[in-house]
Formats: sequence, structure tokens, C-alpha cells
Amino acid sequence: MDLQLIRRLSIPADSKVVLCVLDGLGGLANYKGRTELDEASTRHLDRLAENGALGQTQPAGVGVTVGSGPGHTALFGLDPFEFEIGRGALEATGIDFELGPNDLAARGNLCTVDGDGNITDRRAGRVATEITEEIATLLSSIELPDAEVFVEAVREHRFVLVIRGEGLSPEVSETDPQEEGLPPLLVTAKEPAADRTADLVNSFVEQARALIAARDQANHLLLRGWSVRPSLPQLPELWKLRAAACTVYPMYRGLAQLVGMDAIDGGDSLETQFDALKRHWDDYDFFFVHFKATDAAGEDGDFARKVQAISDFDRQLPQLMELEPDVLVVTGDRSTPAMMAAHSWHPVPMLISGTNVRTDSARSFTELECVTGGLGTIPATELLPLAFAHAGRLAKYGA
Amino acid sequence: MDLQLIRRLSIPADSKVVLCVLDGLGGLANYKGRTELDEASTRHLDRLAENGALGQTQPAGVGVTVGSGPGHTALFGLDPFEFEIGRGALEATGIDFELGPNDLAARGNLCTVDGDGNITDRRAGRVATEITEEIATLLSSIELPDAEVFVEAVREHRFVLVIRGEGLSPEVSETDPQEEGLPPLLVTAKEPAADRTADLVNSFVEQARALIAARDQANHLLLRGWSVRPSLPQLPELWKLRAAACTVYPMYRGLAQLVGMDAIDGGDSLETQFDALKRHWDDYDFFFVHFKATDAAGEDGDFARKVQAISDFDRQLPQLMELEPDVLVVTGDRSTPAMMAAHSWHPVPMLISGTNVRTDSARSFTELECVTGGLGTIPATELLPLAFAHAGRLAKYGA
Repeated sequence: MDLQLIRRLSIPADSKVVLCVLDGLGGLANYKGRTELDEASTRHLDRLAENGALGQTQPAGVGVTVGSGPGHTALFGLDPFEFEIGRGALEATGIDFELGPNDLAARGNLCTVDGDGNITDRRAGRVATEITEEIATLLSSIELPDAEVFVEAVREHRFVLVIRGEGLSPEVSETDPQEEGLPPLLVTAKEPAADRTADLVNSFVEQARALIAARDQANHLLLRGWSVRPSLPQLPELWKLRAAACTVYPMYRGLAQLVGMDAIDGGDSLETQFDALKRHWDDYDFFFVHFKATDAAGEDGDFARKVQAISDFDRQLPQLMELEPDVLVVTGDRSTPAMMAAHSWHPVPMLISGTNVRTDSARSFTELECVTGGLGTIPATELLPLAFAHAGRLAKYGA
Repeated sequence: MDLQLIRRLSIPADSKVVLCVLDGLGGLANYKGRTELDEASTRHLDRLAENGALGQTQPAGVGVTVGSGPGHTALFGLDPFEFEIGRGALEATGIDFELGPNDLAARGNLCTVDGDGNITDRRAGRVATEITEEIATLLSSIELPDAEVFVEAVREHRFVLVIRGEGLSPEVSETDPQEEGLPPLLVTAKEPAADRTADLVNSFVEQARALIAARDQANHLLLRGWSVRPSLPQLPELWKLRAAACTVYPMYRGLAQLVGMDAIDGGDSLETQFDALKRHWDDYDFFFVHFKATDAAGEDGDFARKVQAISDFDRQLPQLMELEPDVLVVTGDRSTPAMMAAHSWHPVPMLISGTNVRTDSARSFTELECVTGGLGTIPATELLPLAFAHAGRLAKYGA
């Protein structure tokens, strides 16, 4: 649904809507011809499927595999191609670094170079996170004219660089030559307005190199994905509601905050997440609950662990149902089939349960039932409008 | 289908196409798990479903509930967002007032104001239609410089005001403050070209107020939805055919006339409507038949009456089948589930029967069978192109 149309038709209501995202939910059949959803114990989800309606979402169109950024942007109802979140901004979001309006972020890698300055390992042997933390502290001491520097370790060789200052531009080139045997590149401005930014970055890299050049490993660095805080439409304004994100992982909390949701403390498990929903039930109209274990297991190619993760979610579901949401949506941001040990382009199973749902013939929550479900196969961007329609939050169009 | 493509590919043919719109056809399951279509006696529709093909239409996209205007615009193959019909124009259409090129229409409400001029009841206690008719006659005597005034009662407190004159503009504000305790607003021009219109309207309101101020109730009026006759693409030109509308209610006749259909007298029942088709069978290639009872019962929340309305349509259907249309489409403009007592966003059941239909597995005409029907779920705007393709009215694209 077009954002102008949402603004025009959205109306307040007393209903509660919960969106549960089982990251990487969609799967593929194993050698027995059964998917992770087929094999999982999904007694409660199956009952919801029986009384509700099923369908599938396409995060970004046929054949497109999405990262976490566009996967969630789409679920939040925003065109993932129009509203792109830069890699640096996403990485900052993932470590809970809240980007301000004057911040320029890059994703950094520690790397190793030889005596001639040519890269021998773009990931510095996936150096331990603790080492990266030490180096990050060291690099944070670098001083730039009229700008502040923040360096924060992410995991292994990865870190985030944020430069804070007036008039910084993401229109600068990356230092990563994308192959070994070459030296890191100097940064150049892609437009005149970025000249100062390029100078600052080159100065940062030169000082950083001096600080770590003596190391055997992780003696240089690569910077890419220059980006500023993305300016995304805000769900509370679009939909005239109060929205809360309840996640365990900071990246998903950060993504939700970028579209204007408040973060409520999800603790470290589904149980603490659903507890948080209960505590804040009266404070919000819409709750986004993110569950990571399905995706992590899928990416690791661990079929049994993904089955277990789905079963765990199902076992915990009654705790959510006790809150009696008017509309409950269960879906994923994408498919992450354990058989592929990777994210994929396959459509994502979707379930809507609650008020005014037109029931279909489905008796269980599986990929196969979702194919013929009553909700059809829709762009993920249409999921929130559909959920909010069921919740009485969309006025009629035209007389 | 893009209008330019329709113009390019449409060709004349000898076939007859009938589009039967059961207004608000789509429903929701009752406590027994059965919808209005499930419960209705649909012997003839089921036979058509068995030999034809089913599917669903979305009037204006996922989650959007449409009014009669956009619901029918979409069925006639026109993007309901691109071709919007103003509220005043629709209201005029609904009482058979044919707007001319120099007409500006508004939807009017009689209201009641207190001694200070503040609104105490925006609907004047839903005053009897006869009173509104008397007042309308009185207001019709108002004179404006170089413009004519028409005031026609609609129902209860509602009326239509049409001002006819050169250079009138709909770009003026509404007088309805949308809440009680405030006085009706003066009209202001939204652009300089609308200055004269604003003056005329304010003069009308001032004179009207003087004429009815002494009344206890319905002693003032509110005006909104300023609109001119919409300029819509014309079906006969687009499709190279002769098109007729056969309705009982004037609004649907009016909507059809706005897209270039001729109105043929439908009388007051399905029987007289199908009689009219028979009389005019040789005069037209395409017939639009509108059946209101399903929507009215649905909106009233009367499940049994909606079931009966569908059964009534089915019983009358053989009279239409005797005419042997080449292509018969049965669908709705939207869903109006009796369980909601309201219009809704749910997809609308659709049936195509006739020449060259690729039969699917459906054995009856129900929401559930439509979900998995061979025609899929399509935008309502694609229905006419699909029907006309089956009728041999679309040439091949490309060599």
C-alpha cells in the first residue's frame, strides 16, 4: 500500500496487533521430503492455522534473497528498494550504536598486509573479538579536525567506524580493493561536496595504520559501506498508533527504532520477551517480536536445531495467546533453509489469526499449506496493511 | 491492463458478455463455520462453477475496503486511485442528477445550530426525507449571479447541491467543521481561480441560512465533497463495443454512465432486469447487471437475508442463461460480510463461465473454492480484460 494512502486511510482503534517474526522461517524438504516446519511440533501454531488464514510473503519480489535490513524494512511495510539501509548504518544498528544526524558510519574489517603493504588476509585470520576490541579502543583515540571518531568492535575482525561532524558525506569510495595482493585504496570523493570527508577518512586511515603497523596480524584495516542514518517513514505517524519492538538481538531492535518503534526490554529469551509484552500491553497498539534462533540454525545448516527452534517457539506461544491479541501474525523475514545452510529467495510462510479473518482450508502451519492459503502470496510490504485492516485500523476508501 | 494497451489490442466481435455484480458478495463464516455463499442455494451458480473457472478479485489492493465508487470503477477496469470520483459527484449520480460540464456538486447535510450558531446536531436528528424535500425546494429558489442553483433531497438529512455556471472550481474548502459545538465554516478558495466559487458558495449559505433559520431543527446546513463531473475513460471507445447498464438503483446506473455505458431500464427486480437484457440483447455487446440486495443485507448484519438474496439471484439465473451469453461473469464489487455488518477488504469471489474457459477443479461457488480457483487472485481492474479475452475481443500482442 502506497504510503500516502496509508496516511490517508489509517485510523486509531482499540485493537492490539502482534507481529512475531521467526527469522529465516521458511525451509526446504530434507531427504525424507519434510521441511523444518513439517518436522517441528507445532500444536499451537496448527490450531491458529486451522482457525486463521495462511499465505506467503515475498520480501523483495520473485527470486530475490534479502539480508536482514531489507527483509525487515519490507515487513514493516516499506519498499526495501526505495528505503535502503547502508551497510555501515546497519552494522552500527547491530551493536546498538544509535546514529545521529551528523554521523557517517562504515563497516570496518581488520586485515593483514605484507611488508610491501599488500593485503595477505582481508579478514586478518578472523582475529578474536577481544583483540578487535583492544584495537578499537586504540583507534578511538585518533583525532580529526572538527570531527569526532568512534570505533566499536562487532565480532572477530569486524568493527564499526563512525565519524561525527558537520557536512559529512557518504559519497566517498571504499578502501577495500575486494581482493588480496593489492594495497588498501585511498578514499576519493564521488562529488565535490565530499572532498572534506575523503580527506578526513584518509587521515583516519593513515593514523590508524601508524598505530597498528607493528602488529604481525591485523596490522591494517578496510572500510566500506559508507552510510548516514537512513531517514525512514515512521510507523507511529503512518499508522497513528504506538509501536513497540521486543527483541533479543540489537540489530532488530535498531531496525525497528529506525521506523519509529519504541524498544522495550526483551531480555534474553522468548519467555522474557512475552513477559515484556505483558508488562507493556496497555502502553502500545502494535508489538514486533523477533525470534532469531530459527535463522541461526538454518544458516548453520543444522536442520534438527531449526526444527527444535520452531518447536520451542510453539511451546512458548500460549504465553502470548493469554494476552488475547486481536490480530496475531506469525511469519519470517525470509527463508533460511537448513538444507542450503544459507538465506534464500523462497517465499515465507505467513499466518494471520484473529478478528474477521476469512478462514481457509488449512489445518496446519507448513510451507505446503501456505501455498494454497486464503491470503495468497503477497509482497511482504502488504502484510502490515493486511494485519491492520483486520484490526479495524483502515478506513474505507471512497464513498 | 494499461488503457493504451486496451486501445491497441481491443477488437470488435460478435460475442455477448454479461457482468453480474452481486454487490458486497464476499462473506465471512458464521458460528457454524459457513459463509453466506456456503449456506445459499446456488444450484445454478454451482453448475457454472463446475463448467467454468473461479478466482478472486481485489478491488483496490490488499487490505483496502472500498466504497461503491472505487469498487465499480475498478470492476470497469479503471484504476480506482487514478480515477477518483468526488463525494458530491457520486451523491448526484445516486439521485440520477446528471452532472454537466459546468456543474459543481457538493454533498449537503441539514444540521441544527443553537442560538449562538454552534452546531448541536450535524445530522439534524436524521430529519424525515419529506422535510428535506420541502427545504430543498425552498433552497432551490436561491439566486446567484451568473449561476444556477439546484438542490435535491437524497434521504433523511442528506441533499445534493449543484451550482451550474462558467468557470466554477472544486478547489474550495468545506463548511463542515466535522464536530459539534462549532459553527459551520465559511468557504475559502484553495487557489485564486476558485475565488468566485467561494463567494458564490458563501452567498448561497448565507441566503439558505436566512430561509431556514427560524426552524427548530434543520435550521442550517453543511457542505462538503466539492466535485465536478469526473472525466473517465469511456468503455465503448476503449473496447470498441456497445455497452449497457441494467440496474435498479440510480447510483450504479450513474457510475456506469460515467464510463460511457447506456442505461437501459432495469425496472425494480432481477426479473425485470433480465427481461430488459432480453429486449436489448441485439443492441449491445456488453451488459452490466447490478444486484443490490446482497450488500444491503450484509451491511445490515442480516446473515439469513444475505443468504436469501444470493439464493434469489441463483433462482433467477436460468432466465439469463436462456439468452446464452458467450461469457458470463458473476462477482461482487467488494465483500460485505453479514458477520461484520460492514463492507470489508476481503477478496471477492469471481466466476467466469462460457467460451474457452479453462475449467478448474471447483465444484461449487464459494469463497473457499475461489481461493484455489484457476483464475487466481487478481486486481478487479483485470476482470474486464479477462472477460473480453474469452469473448474474442482482444487481439494477439506481437507477431
